[in-house]
Amino acid sequence: MSRPLPPFDPGKPREAIAAAAARVSNWGRWGEDDVLGTVNFIDADARVRAAALVRRGTTFSLSIEFGADGPQTGAGGRINPLYAVRALDTADAGDDVPFPPHGFGGVDDMVVMPLQCATQWDSLGHVFDRGHAWNGRNAADVASVQGDRVTGVQTLAAPLVTRGVLLDVGRALGTDGELPDGFAITVDHLEETSARQGATSAVGRGDILLVRTGRMTKARREGWGTYAGGPAPGLSFTTADWLHDTEIAAVATDTWGCEVRPNEFDRSFQPLHQVVIPHIGMPIGEIWDLDALAADCADDGVYEFLLAAGPIPFTGAAGAPVNPLAVK
Amino acid sequence: MSRPLPPFDPGKPREAIAAAAARVSNWGRWGEDDVLGTVNFIDADARVRAAALVRRGTTFSLSIEFGADGPQTGAGGRINPLYAVRALDTADAGDDVPFPPHGFGGVDDMVVMPLQCATQWDSLGHVFDRGHAWNGRNAADVASVQGDRVTGVQTLAAPLVTRGVLLDVGRALGTDGELPDGFAITVDHLEETSARQGATSAVGRGDILLVRTGRMTKARREGWGTYAGGPAPGLSFTTADWLHDTEIAAVATDTWGCEVRPNEFDRSFQPLHQVVIPHIGMPIGEIWDLDALAADCADDGVYEFLLAAGPIPFTGAAGAPVNPLAVK
Amino acid sequence: MSRPLPPFDPGKPREAIAAAAARVSNWGRWGEDDVLGTVNFIDADARVRAAALVRRGTTFSLSIEFGADGPQTGAGGRINPLYAVRALDTADAGDDVPFPPHGFGGVDDMVVMPLQCATQWDSLGHVFDRGHAWNGRNAADVASVQGDRVTGVQTLAAPLVTRGVLLDVGRALGTDGELPDGFAITVDHLEETSARQGATSAVGRGDILLVRTGRMTKARREGWGTYAGGPAPGLSFTTADWLHDTEIAAVATDTWGCEVRPNEFDRSFQPLHQVVIPHIGMPIGEIWDLDALAADCADDGVYEFLLAAGPIPFTGAAGAPVNPLAVK
Amino acid sequence: MSRPLPPFDPGKPREAIAAAAARVSNWGRWGEDDVLGTVNFIDADARVRAAALVRRGTTFSLSIEFGADGPQTGAGGRINPLYAVRALDTADAGDDVPFPPHGFGGVDDMVVMPLQCATQWDSLGHVFDRGHAWNGRNAADVASVQGDRVTGVQTLAAPLVTRGVLLDVGRALGTDGELPDGFAITVDHLEETSARQGATSAVGRGDILLVRTGRMTKARREGWGTYAGGPAPGLSFTTADWLHDTEIAAVATDTWGCEVRPNEFDRSFQPLHQVVIPHIGMPIGEIWDLDALAADCADDGVYEFLLAAGPIPFTGAAGAPVNPLAVK
Repeated sequence: MSRPLPPFDPGKPREAIAAAAARVSNWGRWGEDDVLGTVNFIDADARVRAAALVRRGTTFSLSIEFGADGPQTGAGGRINPLYAVRALDTADAGDDVPFPPHGFGGVDDMVVMPLQCATQWDSLGHVFDRGHAWNGRNAADVASVQGDRVTGVQTLAAPLVTRGVLLDVGRALGTDGELPDGFAITVDHLEETSARQGATSAVGRGDILLVRTGRMTKARREGWGTYAGGPAPGLSFTTADWLHDTEIAAVATDTWGCEVRPNEFDRSFQPLHQVVIPHIGMPIGEIWDLDALAADCADDGVYEFLLAAGPIPFTGAAGAPVNPLAVK
Repeated sequence: MSRPLPPFDPGKPREAIAAAAARVSNWGRWGEDDVLGTVNFIDADARVRAAALVRRGTTFSLSIEFGADGPQTGAGGRINPLYAVRALDTADAGDDVPFPPHGFGGVDDMVVMPLQCATQWDSLGHVFDRGHAWNGRNAADVASVQGDRVTGVQTLAAPLVTRGVLLDVGRALGTDGELPDGFAITVDHLEETSARQGATSAVGRGDILLVRTGRMTKARREGWGTYAGGPAPGLSFTTADWLHDTEIAAVATDTWGCEVRPNEFDRSFQPLHQVVIPHIGMPIGEIWDLDALAADCADDGVYEFLLAAGPIPFTGAAGAPVNPLAVK
Repeated sequence: MSRPLPPFDPGKPREAIAAAAARVSNWGRWGEDDVLGTVNFIDADARVRAAALVRRGTTFSLSIEFGADGPQTGAGGRINPLYAVRALDTADAGDDVPFPPHGFGGVDDMVVMPLQCATQWDSLGHVFDRGHAWNGRNAADVASVQGDRVTGVQTLAAPLVTRGVLLDVGRALGTDGELPDGFAITVDHLEETSARQGATSAVGRGDILLVRTGRMTKARREGWGTYAGGPAPGLSFTTADWLHDTEIAAVATDTWGCEVRPNEFDRSFQPLHQVVIPHIGMPIGEIWDLDALAADCADDGVYEFLLAAGPIPFTGAAGAPVNPLAVK
Repeated sequence: MSRPLPPFDPGKPREAIAAAAARVSNWGRWGEDDVLGTVNFIDADARVRAAALVRRGTTFSLSIEFGADGPQTGAGGRINPLYAVRALDTADAGDDVPFPPHGFGGVDDMVVMPLQCATQWDSLGHVFDRGHAWNGRNAADVASVQGDRVTGVQTLAAPLVTRGVLLDVGRALGTDGELPDGFAITVDHLEETSARQGATSAVGRGDILLVRTGRMTKARREGWGTYAGGPAPGLSFTTADWLHDTEIAAVATDTWGCEVRPNEFDRSFQPLHQVVIPHIGMPIGEIWDLDALAADCADDGVYEFLLAAGPIPFTGAAGAPVNPLAVK
């Protein structure tokens, strides 16, 4: 973690992205057939140690509610979950009705949603760099309109149980617990936060790192507004090397897009994703609700916990809803 | 658990359902505002003890894949998840394109699905009895076309982390690990299975009970066929009292509908649901894939584990997808 | 048409709605089983006369495009059509591929949409008044979560071919062809427009009346903005009697909601709908694009035409998309 | 129409398709920017003559109902329309409720559907041949996951009003009005049917040809079964030249796929589509309900009529629902 941060020229995103990708690439590290990337860092021992962190038996769901009042604006068709009831029997219709008899009643319902609309994991097939997908695969060989042929989110269903560690940068370095929009969180910020929080905040191999910016707190107070895609605090592009070197399994934040918005290069789109997902091979969690957990961590001073965060295994999907459960 | 099983007359479902409901009702047990029912049995101590069951660090996702090749037949509109890609950029389009520049590529996708189409929890607002919902509420006050106003599945997001225990009735009492369709699992069968499996199989307060029938094994081998709604092994209506008396938090099976199919009464529909959900106040898990976990339990003889099984918190939903994670 | 306009007290919507409903009710006029209401006014002779209006062989589609750039804001889940491609084969994959061989390629696609999201007909089961549906039926007997049991929009599939007549009130009485938001079009306005337009504008039995306000022209110029549900010109509540007395078959406008917005009563919602649909028994067309047709009518001075406007017959639906075709 | 029918070798589909494509290509016929193909044959005069065919004022909707009981099996995600109610107020809730006041009630609903699920038009962007779309365009330039950039079905919204002519091959040559599955309708069959039906059946420039096989009659009697994609009577591949030479605007049938099933070549998929759509530039109508119209034509001996058949203009769609209205 002492490698000097690479400087970059904001006017040369292509070059900077390529350089970072070359530095942090994990292609081939787990064999040519690998579909898990940095999730491979979670081993059995990591899970045993994580389970040992459960001391009080308190659980936190890190998922926002999936409902009409969500972060999406509908732009480009990214709607909030569209819910509808398909069957609704509330009365005892007697026994002479065709169905249902004997006072049975109930509700069936359905949903239409973009798989990235609320609390979710980006799978390793969500983002490509210059035609390449995770592990050096040709993106066109991986992705199709019928779904990802190799790295669909179902591959992540089982392994994502490990130690979680919260770096509450918003509380450590922000005002009233919140970083301002456009604030680029650097490695220095992460390390300073960790230092302030104390020994339970050390980040290491196989961990899932949760970074709280406070952006969701603001959205909860002021309305979602431009939460989805608008200005936000988030990880700096310069954290790419640190994310790689720490050997964490995954990273998730309380923002729409994990990295700082606007992005740090002129006319680019989510450049850190472009390095983290296809080159480091790391899933990114977005729109995670870290507030209740963070308040608890601030109370007891313990920033590590068991985290069970397997996505719903949609076959071939580029991402999926998840209800991450933190247990302290 | 020594209460004699109630006899019932298969020709009198209304009477039997009413009698069972009266015997096992938990209405009011946790106050008039309660929305959790038997999930209240999961306390902090139960979670601490459950975490202590993690010895090897092995995880099992108990969710089937959510895809086109699923159990639903489409009858009545209960389709399998309908997946579609909304954006697909696999090539490096150069930097002169409107978007995305610098070789950024990716996939966005969406899904349409009934909330009960695959591995799921029935919420406490999924089934009613004679116009009544959980805790004695008027079903018409709870349910609406906009969703459940009180007991939507989002109420279950956080608490469902506890000890899981598997009763592999299929392996204990079936042929080649499978019970035949129509096999009604009684309390005797459950207790015999527990006895054969040994000490780690004791079922008690706050546990989530997983009952494996082998029906999904058959579907995996022969195709889904009539898995959804057709004949299947499952819990007998007569287990209602035992489910209540054990003070388990929830029950889940590897079948479409948890209880035996065809149902045990003439012309009834899921009579055990009608007692368990609104009267006992217990969520029911369905279409859970228990095979890999069961094989592991048979191998090491340990049938208890940490189970993290919070549903995706769809606001007001009568049920929701879940990726239950068992950790041994 | 000489009946004096009823005065009403804006503070007493319930009374005014009830009074209008009593005056204009067509309940029982076509028998107790009727599902067509004023569409019954279209008889074979009306269609023959309408066909005779085709002189130049020019057609106009009165439908807006059903796409992402539509009038809906997503509020309350009323989204614009959500389109997705389900299959996409553009290359000749050769003959050794599993499918499709011999250079066959193609696209399959899907849509998710509220049935009222774009150019549409409100069916006779779309709106109720004080618990009553068209023809005096109990609304609860007609409507269900599975759809309308009696007056679903499929009943309107065949008959809606008749004479159309355009009253371009925007052009006749507005500024630059547009009425301002909040402008309540009265019978006087309709009659003055008809008089200015000349003999081809007489409105009578069996016609489908198209009223152009210019509101869509504004939306096309300035963006949809609050087109859906916001302020708009439209029919005054006081036109209810005239709509009834003219014996037209249906009415459609270039606005979201046909009637003036804000509505003319304090704290009411679409009071004219509440009279027109359940009491007069008249379908209402909304979000129709009348601009090209109106320009043509202004050019040639002919405001009547053949109109073929049968909705897509969704079983039991409360409304449906339509591509109305006007032929001059 | 006197050109000798081309023989073909069932074992050489690629060659036969290429040869037919070369013979019937209309590429460039209407300029390089053309998006209408043979719909260009419908001119103003054709519409005036078509309107003159309206003598009795009788209308027929040629659309099946769009509902749960439809032809699709769900295979590959091609489901029947999935309908859901989004709002349902049937009672007069009084005036003290938040909404809706004054006894206003109503229903809002939604649908999820493949655009090819029921009565529809295939657009010119629905099928490609060896990488080529209509008018010689590169299919990859036309089609995208966001929809057709050039020939989306919205281009067909206005022009499809013309003379329709029914060739009831089922009634003319079948048993009890139905052709058997696998029956390939040749040019001889079409011409013999036309001859038997008499003078009103002449097929010519700008017409929309409707071919009734009786397959839907069978489905109505026996259930949809394998109607979607299974064996069916339909046009022979050998009709390609005739479809081209007659200069008809479009063709539609009462079957799932227009052409005979199984297809006439070994291991091919809809080879006639592969010629008709991208090379002739002709829209194909499928799953049209011709039975009521056909019965009327048999009664009065008149097989020509006005046909108004503009699809719902989904932006960029490869096909769309249509409610075709025939008027006699």
